[in-house]
Amino acid sequence: MTSMPRGFRSNTANLGIRDGSLDFMCVLAEVPCAATGVFTQNLFVGPSVTVSREHVRDGRARAVVTISKNANVANGDQGRADAREVVRLIAHELGIDPGDVLIASTGVIGRPYPMEKIRAGVAGLGARMAPADFDLAARAMMTTDTRPKLASRSVGGAALVGVAKGVGMCEPNMATVLTYYFTDAAVDVAALRPMFKRVMDRTFNSISVDSDTSTSDSAVILANGLAGTVPLADFERALFEVASELAYAVVSDGEGATKVIKVTVEGGRDEVQSKRVAKSIVNSPLVKTAVHGADPNWGRVAMAIGKCEDQRDIDVDRVVIRFGELEVYPRRLDPSELARLRETMAQQEVQISVDLRAGNATATVWGCDLSKEYVEINGSYST
Amino acid sequence: MTSMPRGFRSNTANLGIRDGSLDFMCVLAEVPCAATGVFTQNLFVGPSVTVSREHVRDGRARAVVTISKNANVANGDQGRADAREVVRLIAHELGIDPGDVLIASTGVIGRPYPMEKIRAGVAGLGARMAPADFDLAARAMMTTDTRPKLASRSVGGAALVGVAKGVGMCEPNMATVLTYYFTDAAVDVAALRPMFKRVMDRTFNSISVDSDTSTSDSAVILANGLAGTVPLADFERALFEVASELAYAVVSDGEGATKVIKVTVEGGRDEVQSKRVAKSIVNSPLVKTAVHGADPNWGRVAMAIGKCEDQRDIDVDRVVIRFGELEVYPRRLDPSELARLRETMAQQEVQISVDLRAGNATATVWGCDLSKEYVEINGSYST
Repeated sequence: MTSMPRGFRSNTANLGIRDGSLDFMCVLAEVPCAATGVFTQNLFVGPSVTVSREHVRDGRARAVVTISKNANVANGDQGRADAREVVRLIAHELGIDPGDVLIASTGVIGRPYPMEKIRAGVAGLGARMAPADFDLAARAMMTTDTRPKLASRSVGGAALVGVAKGVGMCEPNMATVLTYYFTDAAVDVAALRPMFKRVMDRTFNSISVDSDTSTSDSAVILANGLAGTVPLADFERALFEVASELAYAVVSDGEGATKVIKVTVEGGRDEVQSKRVAKSIVNSPLVKTAVHGADPNWGRVAMAIGKCEDQRDIDVDRVVIRFGELEVYPRRLDPSELARLRETMAQQEVQISVDLRAGNATATVWGCDLSKEYVEINGSYST
Repeated sequence: MTSMPRGFRSNTANLGIRDGSLDFMCVLAEVPCAATGVFTQNLFVGPSVTVSREHVRDGRARAVVTISKNANVANGDQGRADAREVVRLIAHELGIDPGDVLIASTGVIGRPYPMEKIRAGVAGLGARMAPADFDLAARAMMTTDTRPKLASRSVGGAALVGVAKGVGMCEPNMATVLTYYFTDAAVDVAALRPMFKRVMDRTFNSISVDSDTSTSDSAVILANGLAGTVPLADFERALFEVASELAYAVVSDGEGATKVIKVTVEGGRDEVQSKRVAKSIVNSPLVKTAVHGADPNWGRVAMAIGKCEDQRDIDVDRVVIRFGELEVYPRRLDPSELARLRETMAQQEVQISVDLRAGNATATVWGCDLSKEYVEINGSYST
């Protein structure tokens, strides 16, 4: 375990949003932080995301707050007013500017917050803030996650810790990925913004449990600067490693998932094309069920490449497909290699590689298989 | 049962492609026909589709041929040569020009045709052609379909019959929808082409079993003209009814399907927008599992609307969502209406309606639920 960043305090609690489990977490930086965030592209965005987008625009923040078990989405003017009131109450308790508070919510859509419980629960919060317990913070964000997700790295004299939640669907409504990064490194926000976007694009924006985009996805980083500057390249590497570890933890804990699918597409015209093709493969229900059944059905990979109808410049006669290290198309497997192929398909992580042989761009994405348990989990819930 | 169109002959057979079931059908028109077709957009297109596209370009055809249990896709130069040889052999047997033969194949990807068996099987075909048996033709196209799909209408003094196959996935590799229409009405190809495209867009291009696009989808119509002209509007109505019936038969026979989902989006800016949103809803694994479990989880419908990130002009504050006749958003259901809602969700066909309240364009699409049987069927096959 690496050391944790200095200068952060936290509190976790049960506000009684749905049951008796942790449903509230707040992390406060002792000094103003450089901050940036990446949020869902869903049009049915909730007011928590709207407020956080607005508050992080100036590149500064002091606190992040998460309410779990209720997404506060599609609640109209009431939902918007509630989100602003929660932020105002917490800022008042912490003695900071409401504009320095970022908020996220995850859980059921279309039910208003139980505001009486929230008001009572956050009263006196300031006095309860203690030296940060990031493990508890990760636990308080969980909905149907089966385990908390936390990763950390040292960078020079500074530390970086990240937490995440998300398992594909969240009881009872949908996937929400929330992920936060805290560091005591001093990183200028002008450098932090493009770096965070780059890292999120290659980690959390490269995973898919089920192709459904949540209304509440949020990723935020706070850098309080207490440990001074560190080499930017080292920091980006550490951030990438921490975010990769967390993104992997999310897909491997995907609802009903028994396997991780790693798809690498190389030889694309540009990264957009390589990622487009990789996502088409990792999201195909046919590919997902084939991996689930350990069936080396490469025809389904060909189909998923081909259904990228907007990528007309792909020359399918140049495409190469591999399962693990074994080329399965256009070269035909020797029967003597079938045992090795079966072994490859039976791994906990199945690797599918495609070479488009058109350019130099590579993209890697991660997903999970489609199991009966997924249908069970998402079909059996009833209001 | 309406009468069948005059002037068509057919033959069905077992060529031994995979097992002892019917795997070959040929329908021959006694006179040249006006013809047009609509084919898959998949880039990994098979040579059967390439050849048929080329042969129908002149607006004329005499025969359609289908080989099932082998898609002849991703077989390189060998596959291309085989497809042309099969067409040449059949044209020779029937005494017609190879350019008047359309061919389709469906089944496993990546295995060459067993050409010896095909050559032996089609020898002497001309002598075996008998007055058309469209029901047998529909049966010979089946792969894992559980029932043949045939529909017909009379139009004035003419008749129209359509056949289709497709159940989402075809054993062992993927969905292929094949659908053919035969009529003795005289319809000029200049009128037939746009009409057929319009009808296919509103029927077969408006269904989805699993969002995976086959490499072999083909829809073709042959009009031999023996019954003379009929009012074009009447003919289009009959064609739409026959195609609708067949498209519905395909989704309700979708692999593992227990329910049909009908999604109507009205109030779109244009038809492209309405259809884009409707497809996003009907393809969402979360919506499909909710319908499977009869869960009136409208938050998932909101999510699926919102994930159409390319439709930035949708104002989510104007959106209305209904299950059956019941508005569930933004209006909240009265608890007394819950029993009615549960009844609606328990129907064999679940209707989801969305009003975007932005324009006048409406689109309707059909899909099916996602069940454990789907995972079973598509995960358990092993080469």
